[in-house]
Amino acid sequence: MKWWGWGYEEAQFRASNHPDFWPYAKSVLDIESDDFTRREWSLESIELPEARADEPFLAKLRTCLAPCQITDNRKERVIHSYGKGFRDLFRLRRGIAAGAPDLIVYPESERDVCVTLRAAAERDIVLIPFGGGSNIAGCLERADARRMCVSLDMRRMRRVLAVDRRSFTAQIEAGVFGPDLEDQLGAHGMTLGHFPDSFLHSTLGGWIATRSAGMQSDKYGKIEDMVIAIRMVTPEGVLQTRTVPKSSNGIDVNHLCIGSEGTLGVITEATVRVHALPESRQVRGYLFPEFEGGIEAIFECVRQECMPAMVRLNDPDKTALSLAFRPPPSGLTKIAGSFFKTYLRAKGFAQPRACLMLTAFEGGRRGVSGRLQQAEVIYQKCGGVGLGAGAGKSFEATKYDFPHIRDFLLDRNVTTDVSETATVWSNIAKLYQDTTAVLRAEISKSGIRPWAGCHISHTYPCGASLYFTFGFRQQLGREMEQYLQVKRAVQQSFIDNGATLSHHHAVGTEHMPWLAADISLVGVKAVSAIKHGLDPANIMNPGRLMPSSTPLEDWFALGSQRGPIEDEISVSDPEQRRKRRAYDR
Amino acid sequence: MKWWGWGYEEAQFRASNHPDFWPYAKSVLDIESDDFTRREWSLESIELPEARADEPFLAKLRTCLAPCQITDNRKERVIHSYGKGFRDLFRLRRGIAAGAPDLIVYPESERDVCVTLRAAAERDIVLIPFGGGSNIAGCLERADARRMCVSLDMRRMRRVLAVDRRSFTAQIEAGVFGPDLEDQLGAHGMTLGHFPDSFLHSTLGGWIATRSAGMQSDKYGKIEDMVIAIRMVTPEGVLQTRTVPKSSNGIDVNHLCIGSEGTLGVITEATVRVHALPESRQVRGYLFPEFEGGIEAIFECVRQECMPAMVRLNDPDKTALSLAFRPPPSGLTKIAGSFFKTYLRAKGFAQPRACLMLTAFEGGRRGVSGRLQQAEVIYQKCGGVGLGAGAGKSFEATKYDFPHIRDFLLDRNVTTDVSETATVWSNIAKLYQDTTAVLRAEISKSGIRPWAGCHISHTYPCGASLYFTFGFRQQLGREMEQYLQVKRAVQQSFIDNGATLSHHHAVGTEHMPWLAADISLVGVKAVSAIKHGLDPANIMNPGRLMPSSTPLEDWFALGSQRGPIEDEISVSDPEQRRKRRAYDR
Repeated sequence: MKWWGWGYEEAQFRASNHPDFWPYAKSVLDIESDDFTRREWSLESIELPEARADEPFLAKLRTCLAPCQITDNRKERVIHSYGKGFRDLFRLRRGIAAGAPDLIVYPESERDVCVTLRAAAERDIVLIPFGGGSNIAGCLERADARRMCVSLDMRRMRRVLAVDRRSFTAQIEAGVFGPDLEDQLGAHGMTLGHFPDSFLHSTLGGWIATRSAGMQSDKYGKIEDMVIAIRMVTPEGVLQTRTVPKSSNGIDVNHLCIGSEGTLGVITEATVRVHALPESRQVRGYLFPEFEGGIEAIFECVRQECMPAMVRLNDPDKTALSLAFRPPPSGLTKIAGSFFKTYLRAKGFAQPRACLMLTAFEGGRRGVSGRLQQAEVIYQKCGGVGLGAGAGKSFEATKYDFPHIRDFLLDRNVTTDVSETATVWSNIAKLYQDTTAVLRAEISKSGIRPWAGCHISHTYPCGASLYFTFGFRQQLGREMEQYLQVKRAVQQSFIDNGATLSHHHAVGTEHMPWLAADISLVGVKAVSAIKHGLDPANIMNPGRLMPSSTPLEDWFALGSQRGPIEDEISVSDPEQRRKRRAYDR
Repeated sequence: MKWWGWGYEEAQFRASNHPDFWPYAKSVLDIESDDFTRREWSLESIELPEARADEPFLAKLRTCLAPCQITDNRKERVIHSYGKGFRDLFRLRRGIAAGAPDLIVYPESERDVCVTLRAAAERDIVLIPFGGGSNIAGCLERADARRMCVSLDMRRMRRVLAVDRRSFTAQIEAGVFGPDLEDQLGAHGMTLGHFPDSFLHSTLGGWIATRSAGMQSDKYGKIEDMVIAIRMVTPEGVLQTRTVPKSSNGIDVNHLCIGSEGTLGVITEATVRVHALPESRQVRGYLFPEFEGGIEAIFECVRQECMPAMVRLNDPDKTALSLAFRPPPSGLTKIAGSFFKTYLRAKGFAQPRACLMLTAFEGGRRGVSGRLQQAEVIYQKCGGVGLGAGAGKSFEATKYDFPHIRDFLLDRNVTTDVSETATVWSNIAKLYQDTTAVLRAEISKSGIRPWAGCHISHTYPCGASLYFTFGFRQQLGREMEQYLQVKRAVQQSFIDNGATLSHHHAVGTEHMPWLAADISLVGVKAVSAIKHGLDPANIMNPGRLMPSSTPLEDWFALGSQRGPIEDEISVSDPEQRRKRRAYDR
């Protein structure tokens, strides 16, 4: 991954591939200039706190691990500083990497993890398990600057250890990345069926620790529905469960590991449900004259049990964004497109209200075609019009590219981020309307033109997830404040509307202030109790999942540029300091 | 419920309705005599320890609750002593109710529960939440004779508080019994779809606390799959979660309440998934020439996604028992039956190996008939022969009656009990063979003829549950020892074969010695940590879910008649003592 943005070094958003995008953004965000700010700091000029080094700890590691498993290399420290949230990238782009760990360790076996944990516990050293580093909720942020901090990068534990072809289970090391995992399972004719937006850059262990959801969760479930057994190394020893489909053995300890966000131990291995590679996959696009009709179409499919594996319904603004994101049309497509537009206009589709829906059906050929047929009858009843397989193809080709937009816009002094939640069907319309209104109002408060879009995905018999995307011009010097205010408003709207703080992005730092409201104070107390029991010395990712009595104040302090962040690092170079000041003004 | 056996006072096993049963039992258990032992003790002669009475606690209760909510009535104390396991009924039938609580409280609201918990915590008084009292794993057994003990009977908290018809969720008080719950939901056209064998005599809260599974779990899931939100009163306050389909809010605290077996608090309310009442329900019976073919048939349905809502495949011995359990045939049925027998013989079915399978398909009419058709093609391929709707009807008519057999047999000095587990598909055959062999060998060790049968039910993509039933003649004076040895052997076989200690009966006292092997020592430590955090004074159902360092010894001590049980109670009446001695010899 890039240290300063999303994706591989060579991957980026190319305006020429999406010719409508920047004009669209300029128009909706009231931007006049085409200027963009070059990145001002190279990796070399990032301000890194000097690495703390506990000699007895290092000596112990050197005895048990190979030299190539331990590093305090500058680039690695920077990469392991943060995840990929707005706050993370914003700071890195300004040369701030105060969250950098002092050391990175690459375990190659569970034994290596045990050795590191034991040595860390003996020397009161903080460990932060690191998967792909793609988290955007602040799960990886170092909370304690006083103790030595080690990032435990799990990428070398990447083997599929066993596939049980009769039981459709696979035992897998936690550090494996999405594509590698699917390659290994594919060799057995199997798939996990877990394809989050971060698929290219995230790991099995990370998915489990954050309760991740893949695009096709409607068919395959969230990651917590896939885990059958788990191994987690804790400071008190190895927690392990049995490979059984279901049990009544008291409290389900699998669920103590799932969602633990690195606070209890290191997930080293999981046995998960796998599936035969689907015989058939059909990705399709539809247009609905309005959002409500699209929601009704999804709801009816849930009721009639003909759900696709994936459904994404964009609201009008997200639809406009998606259309602006399309690759440049060929001559023929242009002509077909203009005919189609005329047809839509004749059918009463008004562009500002029209909503794009993307679906993927997959499984056995017969089942897929049956479901697709049944679903299309429902879509039509709800006013949907098929866009043919082209829209599906275009989605498939670019489905992991969306996060690159943020880097492109950050370069142009535009803040964008996302907040997602879930609620029951009866509450979806109200939650959508309230939150969109809150988002727009909050951004507008500073006299800035707001952009807010939403899509519905991850549906369940009792409800669905709502995924909000927002963007606005930065007020130079107020960027972090602007972001925090907007982010706070949207999260507060979730909670005020009875929804949850996140459907699949985790609690981290970003959502901590709403944890007690979500799971109740007694819930927080229960989680703390597990923490105290398994990690009495608080060496595992401290500060997470345990809100203080003033979580919102803490949160603002963490995010502020003027106060703690500036203080956190020692800015030695006056030129650097001047440059940053200029930015901050 | 009867205090001395299963079911309503008026319900019992009538030999005349099952004319083949007793001859079958006599023949397979080597019994010659038709004598049966009359129950020797009436309710009045049960030896009850004097009720402890903490005056400040009682005074507090009297201030906050109505007189009809508090009782130390003899019958109520006896009924609340135990669940309905073999050990429970065996002791009660011998006048032993050492586990009786000192007081029974009937809360009518969450406030009543809070008041009782607070008062109990102040006075160091033990509380045991009590649902229907049908548990057979020893979950309700008082572990601490030194402190005053209150049974918190939840039956008056029985209202369906809200039904969200759009989201298909219902908010329900935890004390509601199965039939009452289905009546209330039925008025909204809804069903929970949870029908455990104990349905008539168990409650929503009990199901959640023990991770119960209903007969139709293949369609509706286990209870842990149904719970969306929960309220649990703990000594540290009320834990509550939000009504959202899924979340990523750290560790899922719903799963700390589910399976907590009364050790953390009192579940007062849950919001659960509900379903439209099924349009169609088809119950059918099939006969397979051997067990393996039946297993293959179930497995293929899982793979081809045409599972029934319920499937129960009996092994040969369980099949013979089921056939012996049938109601007397009418003249016409007799003739049809004998034709059918000839047909089966011609097809190569040998009775000692033939296996009965019962299935129920339910849902929308179209879906049901499609699945049934698809499944029947598979059944036929695997050698199955349809028995028509008659077998289904007969199952439907008697599906909750099976537990009555135990009382009938206990009256005739025959011990019967069950142990169930779950494993992955690749391990089912080995687990079945090993455990059946172990069961028979262990019973035979005392020179007694063994009977052991098994059925498969509750199937999943990766495995299924195996449910073993066993029976044998009692050796007078050694009854408890015999039982414990056999029970230990079967549980040990589960663990040795990689399976779980129970699929849906809970840990309780009966399965405690295998808890650490099942969830690992660190898992046990995690559970203990939650307990210490939410119930620091250990007032909630103490002694459960926390094995000592010598769990098996403790377990034998708990079960033994000679030692602790005899000592536990004060046998004041010499005549009673003489009678019991006679029994014990």
